[in-house]
Amino acid sequence: MRTILFAGGAGLWDEYRTALPLALADAGVPARIVTETATPDAVDYIVYAPTSPLQDFAPFTNVKLVQSLWAGVERIVGNPTLTQPLCRMVDPGLTEGMVEYVLGHVLRHHLGMDRHIVNPGHVWDHRCPPLARDRKVTMLGLGALGAACLQALGALHFDLRGWSRTPKSLPGVRCHHGTDGLREALSGAEIVVTLLPRTPGTENILNAETLGWLAPGAAIVNPGRGPLIDDEALLAALDSGQVGHATLDVFRVEPLPAGHPFWTHSRVTVTPHIAADTRADSAARVVAENIRRAEAGEPLLHQVDRVRGY
Amino acid sequence: MRTILFAGGAGLWDEYRTALPLALADAGVPARIVTETATPDAVDYIVYAPTSPLQDFAPFTNVKLVQSLWAGVERIVGNPTLTQPLCRMVDPGLTEGMVEYVLGHVLRHHLGMDRHIVNPGHVWDHRCPPLARDRKVTMLGLGALGAACLQALGALHFDLRGWSRTPKSLPGVRCHHGTDGLREALSGAEIVVTLLPRTPGTENILNAETLGWLAPGAAIVNPGRGPLIDDEALLAALDSGQVGHATLDVFRVEPLPAGHPFWTHSRVTVTPHIAADTRADSAARVVAENIRRAEAGEPLLHQVDRVRGY
Repeated sequence: MRTILFAGGAGLWDEYRTALPLALADAGVPARIVTETATPDAVDYIVYAPTSPLQDFAPFTNVKLVQSLWAGVERIVGNPTLTQPLCRMVDPGLTEGMVEYVLGHVLRHHLGMDRHIVNPGHVWDHRCPPLARDRKVTMLGLGALGAACLQALGALHFDLRGWSRTPKSLPGVRCHHGTDGLREALSGAEIVVTLLPRTPGTENILNAETLGWLAPGAAIVNPGRGPLIDDEALLAALDSGQVGHATLDVFRVEPLPAGHPFWTHSRVTVTPHIAADTRADSAARVVAENIRRAEAGEPLLHQVDRVRGY
Repeated sequence: MRTILFAGGAGLWDEYRTALPLALADAGVPARIVTETATPDAVDYIVYAPTSPLQDFAPFTNVKLVQSLWAGVERIVGNPTLTQPLCRMVDPGLTEGMVEYVLGHVLRHHLGMDRHIVNPGHVWDHRCPPLARDRKVTMLGLGALGAACLQALGALHFDLRGWSRTPKSLPGVRCHHGTDGLREALSGAEIVVTLLPRTPGTENILNAETLGWLAPGAAIVNPGRGPLIDDEALLAALDSGQVGHATLDVFRVEPLPAGHPFWTHSRVTVTPHIAADTRADSAARVVAENIRRAEAGEPLLHQVDRVRGY
């Protein structure tokens, strides 16, 4: 019988209180789940979200795995007390939701939907958009989420490029990497999607210089992390027309504060961090599978590299 | 050397004057193309669009094929002088454009994009939409276009039903047919896409009764033909909330007249007949292939059944 500390905050526990025991039973892991503990050294596993008050992992001397419920771990990876193995959540439900969001908003910009959705002059302007095969789309970030989105975009024949820190290869995508590859990936791009992890190397990766490489009037879709974009540079590029539209799901401060210029800019669409939400049913199965692997001494899924930061 | 009369109107000839000779040469069909003729009995093939002044096909006694440049043939199929074999255009570029439009607008309604695109109150409402696998989408019409759209929707795991006049089978789609099957196909549908041909049997197929079968607040996307929907019944269903939104690309009169209630209804999006436009390059290849087939005595592609009307 293993002891699992669910440290996700009260709201998340309501979502997982049914799903997690079921998933653990299905995985054949006998366990009791607690939401608080007076004996941290008796805890075997921690299921974690940054919304939990837990910040000091040092007393949990016997914990074999800290399993994040979030895909992004930047709020936890730098915690010096966290020396236990740390795994990110890669939830199939989260991936599906992200693919739907990215495909939907890329198609929205590709098709120019907004001028039909908001058309107070009742203009009948019979101009067809180009086909997707003639639309240049660049994905920054080629991890599990970026790759899944590219696969869906590729099925529609979009003209695809991708960029990642280290070399990667994806079918149907011209992949670039590293500092030198970024310009090749972005030059002339008409739609850019940012699905990079937040690291010191990715912060402000879209800035005054790199935004200038895009096709004039390009659209940006950011369901990744707010700090990937230099907000001031983006606003300047929107004002100049170099960027035609930005659809932003993530921000440096969330909820986006009232009065932030993104709320009122006519070329910005704010979505409230909904691109990918972890779904308890499918995420609980991932948690249970990783605990089963830890028990069996098998390699963990999606373990975080502390040096890279994701 | 065969003689081809291009009867598509001057505007279309500008699009095809380069593409069509190239496609014919590639298909190995020696031909001269004319845009008018004083000797109709010397014409072997007619390439046609209803925008042409040509209405009397009787003098063309040696024509082996009238190839429409349009997918819909309702403006020509009832012409009593047209006794020659008639083929519809099924253009791969048109199909791709239709898939992009349908997938884009289904995702728009699925994700609830409009409340973010138009959000004057700057509301941060963090509610995720369900996953596509939990969204019921029904396609009316299972021809080449409907099937292609369903395949793309199925790749995103939407919960799919389809309906056609005669029995059809598509992978991953619960297919219904005939008068009795319509209710099964529509009951509880959250998003309905209409891609039926216009025939006496499909006119007003979405009417007060059938709209009542949908899930309350359902969305309708009509890139098919305007008369598939009873306009008055749709407006009433929009006013009552039974239909939450209609995105309409086709209308009984086009351009949609100024003052039509669709222009001003808050729950209607008008798009100006852009869902699928024939692209000259790919359509010319289809024309050339059908002429090659006629010359070789092979079965024609997409020949119209005069009884069914499509």
